[in-house]
Amino acid sequence: MKPGILTLTTDFGIGGPYVAAMKGVLLGLAPGTQIVDVCHTISPQNILEGAFVLAGIVDSFPDGTVHLAVVDPGVGIDRRLVAARLAEQWFVLPDNGLITGVVRNQPPEEVWEITNPALHRHVVSNTFHGRDILSPAAAHLLRGGDPAELGAPVSRLITLRNFEPMADETGYVGEVIFRDTFGNLITNVNSAHLAGHPADAWVVEIAGERIEGLSRTYGEKPTGSLMALPGSSGWVEVAVVNGDAARQLTAGAGTTVWLRHKSQATGS
Amino acid sequence: MKPGILTLTTDFGIGGPYVAAMKGVLLGLAPGTQIVDVCHTISPQNILEGAFVLAGIVDSFPDGTVHLAVVDPGVGIDRRLVAARLAEQWFVLPDNGLITGVVRNQPPEEVWEITNPALHRHVVSNTFHGRDILSPAAAHLLRGGDPAELGAPVSRLITLRNFEPMADETGYVGEVIFRDTFGNLITNVNSAHLAGHPADAWVVEIAGERIEGLSRTYGEKPTGSLMALPGSSGWVEVAVVNGDAARQLTAGAGTTVWLRHKSQATGS
Amino acid sequence: MKPGILTLTTDFGIGGPYVAAMKGVLLGLAPGTQIVDVCHTISPQNILEGAFVLAGIVDSFPDGTVHLAVVDPGVGIDRRLVAARLAEQWFVLPDNGLITGVVRNQPPEEVWEITNPALHRHVVSNTFHGRDILSPAAAHLLRGGDPAELGAPVSRLITLRNFEPMADETGYVGEVIFRDTFGNLITNVNSAHLAGHPADAWVVEIAGERIEGLSRTYGEKPTGSLMALPGSSGWVEVAVVNGDAARQLTAGAGTTVWLRHKSQATGS
Repeated sequence: MKPGILTLTTDFGIGGPYVAAMKGVLLGLAPGTQIVDVCHTISPQNILEGAFVLAGIVDSFPDGTVHLAVVDPGVGIDRRLVAARLAEQWFVLPDNGLITGVVRNQPPEEVWEITNPALHRHVVSNTFHGRDILSPAAAHLLRGGDPAELGAPVSRLITLRNFEPMADETGYVGEVIFRDTFGNLITNVNSAHLAGHPADAWVVEIAGERIEGLSRTYGEKPTGSLMALPGSSGWVEVAVVNGDAARQLTAGAGTTVWLRHKSQATGS
Repeated sequence: MKPGILTLTTDFGIGGPYVAAMKGVLLGLAPGTQIVDVCHTISPQNILEGAFVLAGIVDSFPDGTVHLAVVDPGVGIDRRLVAARLAEQWFVLPDNGLITGVVRNQPPEEVWEITNPALHRHVVSNTFHGRDILSPAAAHLLRGGDPAELGAPVSRLITLRNFEPMADETGYVGEVIFRDTFGNLITNVNSAHLAGHPADAWVVEIAGERIEGLSRTYGEKPTGSLMALPGSSGWVEVAVVNGDAARQLTAGAGTTVWLRHKSQATGS
Repeated sequence: MKPGILTLTTDFGIGGPYVAAMKGVLLGLAPGTQIVDVCHTISPQNILEGAFVLAGIVDSFPDGTVHLAVVDPGVGIDRRLVAARLAEQWFVLPDNGLITGVVRNQPPEEVWEITNPALHRHVVSNTFHGRDILSPAAAHLLRGGDPAELGAPVSRLITLRNFEPMADETGYVGEVIFRDTFGNLITNVNSAHLAGHPADAWVVEIAGERIEGLSRTYGEKPTGSLMALPGSSGWVEVAVVNGDAARQLTAGAGTTVWLRHKSQATGS
């Protein structure tokens, strides 16, 4: 069997031995697996941010990829660990909402709880289930193991409500869910939400600023201009051309954003 | 021969060309090697921190893994570069104490100095022995080369004293050797040190705070509580449940910690 | 065909889904490719810094390596994307000067514009050409595809002027182009520039400090000393022995540096 691909998304940070320890366990059990680090700088225990990042990579990866994600404030407390299959890919993670962005558009095809101690690491610590339970479970799937051996089937996964904006007759009230390295503010409003009206019929309001119409590309306005546009994964983002919108607006994850049809927009 | 695994631990930081240059040399000489980045954000020239991180991954990796580590304040001055075999794994690093955590429990089985210029890069710089000497040496081992070709055998390695806490009749005086991304303070006191007394018979004192008993998991106390518990690799760590102990205690690497049997503990 | 090596240099930062999305596309099209992250923390849109980092790794990598680099302030505006072959390696990047350091010493052997939509990702976004155009182009080359299928040949690439210092009869006026994690200040003056005079005949002036002669290694002066020396890739760097030159001099990328033959040097 040809080696598979594993992606890894955590809030473990880039210092320290934790991420490599997970990889060592994985490679011992599923030699040759190609490991892709997605991001280890999810804000500590910020499940929403983790859910956004995970959702942003899924459709770039080929069938058979196993996505392992650990943002796990409940480690050692009461939460399930699960393996979910969706669109020919696997997701191995705590059942705490981290899968929300992935299951927005389609439900998982099958989900299993990860409880079988025969598929855990020989000693399971109380504080590092990523290494001791999730890595071995991912290795099991990468080796083509039967998912039913992991544990019992699960019928319903936890999802986060604030991954979706609220809709009313004037449009949407959402929030910034990710600030990228350029200072772009990515919101939880998606181009699919906006399909009923043309791009120039939307008004975006954020941090006291009002942006008329959605742009298509950063090049449409001069340097320094504030703009809103559907980003590369479809989420509406607020950007400053060749600048830093987060700094300019003093905004970031959690900042409220309004998208209104133009006829409904209030003055700013 | 099937390609091997190389781990890489440095203080080179995540910016700049240095780490990738080492990898390029490695892959040119040992094609197909699976490279695992452990951590490149060891505080510059902090050998103790490097030793801790390296020790934290070893037992997660399979036999045959080569661990390459570079925290090397002595580059171009007088220090040896060595390759040490221990528990079916190889360690390629400067002989400056970086191996301390790995050799705590068992001595290396064999150690060789790395001096043979035929196994160096074609040109050796004065300031980047990681790329020019250590990477080619690691590649030699990954290709199954004879370690005796690297140089002369070495009988004794340098180790750091402050990797171990001091013991007296009341318990241990140690220090924080790593602050992780969650603000957990990992100390150099290990559960093996504490085996003579039950968990609730220990009192931990750090930064003017007193913690009664050792917990088993973060979930045992309410959010915001200060606790001490043996971490996922056995080191006692001081944590705040769903919080940041380092910030709350204004503590970090080097902060003194006392672990005393309860009958001996002083009031705080 | 045996899988190839791809290096990846971007200003995308280490958070977020962007880098992994590029890798997913790449691995879907060129399975088994060995991916080496060079650096994703190039200062946002700083082409000069990206050019320096890219130049610093080239001669460490084996023939056949494909270097993919994205620092792309012009995405969605008017700039070409190109694939250039040089010294048996490929460079896939925007034609905005990012290749400057690589082509300093020799021109590329062939260059192709990347325009063929049949080799783009199925949907091309307006803001993420790294994932949608450059990754598929790199995959095409890694699969051994004909570069002429990418687009039309290109005869001339854009290069950055300030990658080279200015020369006059007294020596060179250059600038710091990279500050590494140790605080070393790497300049755009190369040992090749200095070949006409011995090391002790040069005086370096930076941030009001005057350094007599070039050293060979950090060990030549006591801890805390300011020194200048040719670094591991030939660029002259200003360092403090076991210290941080950038902090000590309050200097960084863009700081002016003078290298003068001693007889010509002015007093400081």
